[in-house]
Amino acid sequence: MKIITPGEGETFDIELEENLLAKNRELAEANRRRLDEKGVRAFDVMGAIGAGKTSLIGALIAHLRGRRVGVLAGDLTTTIDADRLAERGAAAVVQINTGKECHLDANVVAKGLDEVLQQGVEIIFIENVGNLICPAEFPLGSHSRVVVVSVTEGPYTMRKHPYILREASVLAINKSDLAPMMKVDLEQLRRDALAVNPTLQVIATDCLNGEGIEQVAAALGL
Amino acid sequence: MKIITPGEGETFDIELEENLLAKNRELAEANRRRLDEKGVRAFDVMGAIGAGKTSLIGALIAHLRGRRVGVLAGDLTTTIDADRLAERGAAAVVQINTGKECHLDANVVAKGLDEVLQQGVEIIFIENVGNLICPAEFPLGSHSRVVVVSVTEGPYTMRKHPYILREASVLAINKSDLAPMMKVDLEQLRRDALAVNPTLQVIATDCLNGEGIEQVAAALGL
Repeated sequence: MKIITPGEGETFDIELEENLLAKNRELAEANRRRLDEKGVRAFDVMGAIGAGKTSLIGALIAHLRGRRVGVLAGDLTTTIDADRLAERGAAAVVQINTGKECHLDANVVAKGLDEVLQQGVEIIFIENVGNLICPAEFPLGSHSRVVVVSVTEGPYTMRKHPYILREASVLAINKSDLAPMMKVDLEQLRRDALAVNPTLQVIATDCLNGEGIEQVAAALGL
Repeated sequence: MKIITPGEGETFDIELEENLLAKNRELAEANRRRLDEKGVRAFDVMGAIGAGKTSLIGALIAHLRGRRVGVLAGDLTTTIDADRLAERGAAAVVQINTGKECHLDANVVAKGLDEVLQQGVEIIFIENVGNLICPAEFPLGSHSRVVVVSVTEGPYTMRKHPYILREASVLAINKSDLAPMMKVDLEQLRRDALAVNPTLQVIATDCLNGEGIEQVAAALGL
């Protein structure tokens, strides 16, 4: 088998992106300073379509009842996730529609913060666009990044997607109840993830039934 | 709920991308001319992590036995999919590792074609990186684009990802055997997909068991 690995400058957009990424990092740092000044904790949640990002955030909001939680929900065009999270009891919900953009960036998140910080929230969850690749390179200024992977994505997710795991501090392996039926070995997924990033806190979750939510909250210091 | 939609020029990279996309379209047209001159048919397969792209291509290779099929397999860093497809009997397999790039582009595919066209193949499948967003904007020069969506991604995939469905001519709704257990309505998914792109040929598949493969092959004119 032949393996092709494009070299530096061989793909179109490497140099252009360097400037974008540097600018994004600056704006992310500004977001972080703003959150810290107000004493607000923020967490961003990344993962593929259907991994369970919205279900995880919804379960965390239920777990944290009594505290004022804000949500920024990123999606290409719809308000499906934001609607679901408003129903779960979020004190403030902002939908960020990115159009064809495949990730949130620190600039659109700054606009979202303008809105939710006015509502006097203590905790903010930022749900990224459903994508296991592009969000990794765009820090948003949150205090921790969470990745959600569903066992229904099969046995190779951790090995195929090292970059996003390296950016995260918490990994939720979701729909863990389906692992036997999907013939996916939870312990192997955990080992694969830790081989990529040994500092990850890896938690098996079943967000629809509340399994593992307390552990995720504790891992985030909540 | 507040909805934020970044305007023209408000996200970082819109203008930069216009040039890249135009350059990519030129290279895609060159790929297409090259394929046509050699009488080779090419199809590219897009979808999220774990949707079943490799399983679909593997099942199509088995269905087309006796014909020389080449594969270009795109992934960030691993050769997992290329290895699986070599085992399924592909006559030529090229792995394209994109690093942090979230999609194949017509430039790296041209390099891959250099390799597989030397092997005298009649049909080429191009497996894109696992991503339901970014590959849509980068045509590769293939004769048809196929999207694979798994029912395990939940009920909202078609509504959340209109752009990629508009680029495709065939949609495989895969792992269709799991629809009842995942409480996903196959007919609703089909209706949602056709509402986005009425010209789509929508086929329910269970690639691991060969269900729907003959129909996908027919939809591709194979």
